[in-house]
Amino acid sequence: MNILVTGASGRIGKVLVPTLLEQRHRVTCFDVKVPDRFRIDPGISWIQGNLAKSAGIKELLRGQDVVIHLGAYMSWDKKENKKLFSSNIQGTFFLLEGCVQNSIKKFIFVSSGEVYPESKPEYLPIDENHPRKPTSFYGETKLIGEEMVQYYARACGLQAVILRISHTQNSSELLDPSSFFSGPRFFLSARIVRAKKLRNKAELDVLKPFWDGKEKLILPIGTDGKAFKMHITETRDIVQGILLAVQTDLPSGEVFNIGYDVPVPFDVYIPRMSQLIGIPYVTVTFPYPSVWYETSNAKAKRLLGYNPKWSFDMMVEEAAKFHRKAENPL
Amino acid sequence: MNILVTGASGRIGKVLVPTLLEQRHRVTCFDVKVPDRFRIDPGISWIQGNLAKSAGIKELLRGQDVVIHLGAYMSWDKKENKKLFSSNIQGTFFLLEGCVQNSIKKFIFVSSGEVYPESKPEYLPIDENHPRKPTSFYGETKLIGEEMVQYYARACGLQAVILRISHTQNSSELLDPSSFFSGPRFFLSARIVRAKKLRNKAELDVLKPFWDGKEKLILPIGTDGKAFKMHITETRDIVQGILLAVQTDLPSGEVFNIGYDVPVPFDVYIPRMSQLIGIPYVTVTFPYPSVWYETSNAKAKRLLGYNPKWSFDMMVEEAAKFHRKAENPL
Repeated sequence: MNILVTGASGRIGKVLVPTLLEQRHRVTCFDVKVPDRFRIDPGISWIQGNLAKSAGIKELLRGQDVVIHLGAYMSWDKKENKKLFSSNIQGTFFLLEGCVQNSIKKFIFVSSGEVYPESKPEYLPIDENHPRKPTSFYGETKLIGEEMVQYYARACGLQAVILRISHTQNSSELLDPSSFFSGPRFFLSARIVRAKKLRNKAELDVLKPFWDGKEKLILPIGTDGKAFKMHITETRDIVQGILLAVQTDLPSGEVFNIGYDVPVPFDVYIPRMSQLIGIPYVTVTFPYPSVWYETSNAKAKRLLGYNPKWSFDMMVEEAAKFHRKAENPL
Repeated sequence: MNILVTGASGRIGKVLVPTLLEQRHRVTCFDVKVPDRFRIDPGISWIQGNLAKSAGIKELLRGQDVVIHLGAYMSWDKKENKKLFSSNIQGTFFLLEGCVQNSIKKFIFVSSGEVYPESKPEYLPIDENHPRKPTSFYGETKLIGEEMVQYYARACGLQAVILRISHTQNSSELLDPSSFFSGPRFFLSARIVRAKKLRNKAELDVLKPFWDGKEKLILPIGTDGKAFKMHITETRDIVQGILLAVQTDLPSGEVFNIGYDVPVPFDVYIPRMSQLIGIPYVTVTFPYPSVWYETSNAKAKRLLGYNPKWSFDMMVEEAAKFHRKAENPL
């Protein structure tokens, strides 16, 4: 099939595209930025552009069978709400209008677990019927994307699948202090830098006393006394879910949580990660309730045959190899 | 209070603004167009602009206490989806961002009964818990507006009320063949013109045989054999609901259906309207199921003290006077 992948330069796109090529699809990669190095392959073509600008979308979609819409701007800075709106809401609208005009056979919308109020769920585990009340504007843009997809499915006959994906990481990022997510999640230095950038004074006040010039890992505790617990899924397991959604015949508008079977309890894994890489950890009580949730992938297992393979143990083991490699390149 | 009314030039704005002035509020009227004639009053100021352009919104909101967001583009032509998106979704987003930055005390979002699948409700009467599955893109823009309002209420502390208003008419429009809604709803000539404009061939094929050069009223029947039944609420009763929402203390994000107590059964009223104005009616079976719904205003009655006064009998009686006036101006 001819498959358009938006956001092809991103974490998931970089793993998804080669897999689609192996399955003999012809892939059109679309992103605001083209990676410095990309695979030269007769099955692949690259188009650089911005969905929010709408120009060129018609040409982009011509001859495509399937669209996998990964492309989204990610930010949790309220000053960037306008950019989130234009990239994620306006961009998705233009793409959907184009899909209907070009009779696209299937539209995979990659949404996010952030459409749920993950930091204060109404029940656990979070299934697909859990009320969607995002607490971040990024999550809100995904909710609105879902609603637009459902409109085009309902009113215009678009065949669509919505995947609410877990927080996603390559194993190789987990113990890299410079990684966008895992850096500030696990490393004290990177967390302080992010808190400064987001002007989060309350968090800065809590973190600063722990900084003595030497790197530490963070074991985060909420005001409720609980250590954080959340899903972190390996990119390859997210890609598995996307491929299954492409292949499986489903009623239009079906929604699936995609992520690993169980969440990561930080009080178990921070000590283990600390030991593996020889960086001490500190227990930090943050001035807000713990992030503590579990999301069910039972529907994806039942209807898609989803079977994620990367436990957090396996991810950490691989991460430690990368970490050691970085320390001792020779 | 200082109250900003967007869409002040529209059907509802024209009735709402004078009422707010009577209640001694200072009103800033905002619309893409300023009416040819408007009241000169020390309590009123007019600003012309387009929310979708974002420029000037900050100044517009400075010093306002309450925002009543009536402004929206209305179209049911799929070729106008982009205009609907920019006016109703992007415009509402820019306004909400501005409201949070300017610490607006209360935001009234005028949504629409079209967020429900009014042409195929899942149960009757439709209450505020009925699933929202709009079948028009106009309804979809209102659903997305609601979701954005709820986000700013939840995550940014905006005090907001959402009013899902019924189809709204001035009594004077009801029997005016040139009125935007009532013309094509009730008059054969105007319905044919609209079907042509919307390139609705199926409807045109049904209507044409009835046209013999003389005006007729339409009694519409669906493929299910039922005469249409829907809410038509007098503008003054919608304004009553808006004023109550401004005055009443409510938890943020509360949602109300606003409309007259009972819907209009067309098989009762088309013959009566026909008799009143001396234009014969024809019974037309349209090639789709009947529009046949009833919406509950019980929550607005209970929590706002809503008490609409304009029965359809009263509206038709007033409409007939206007109609006769138009026929015999001397």
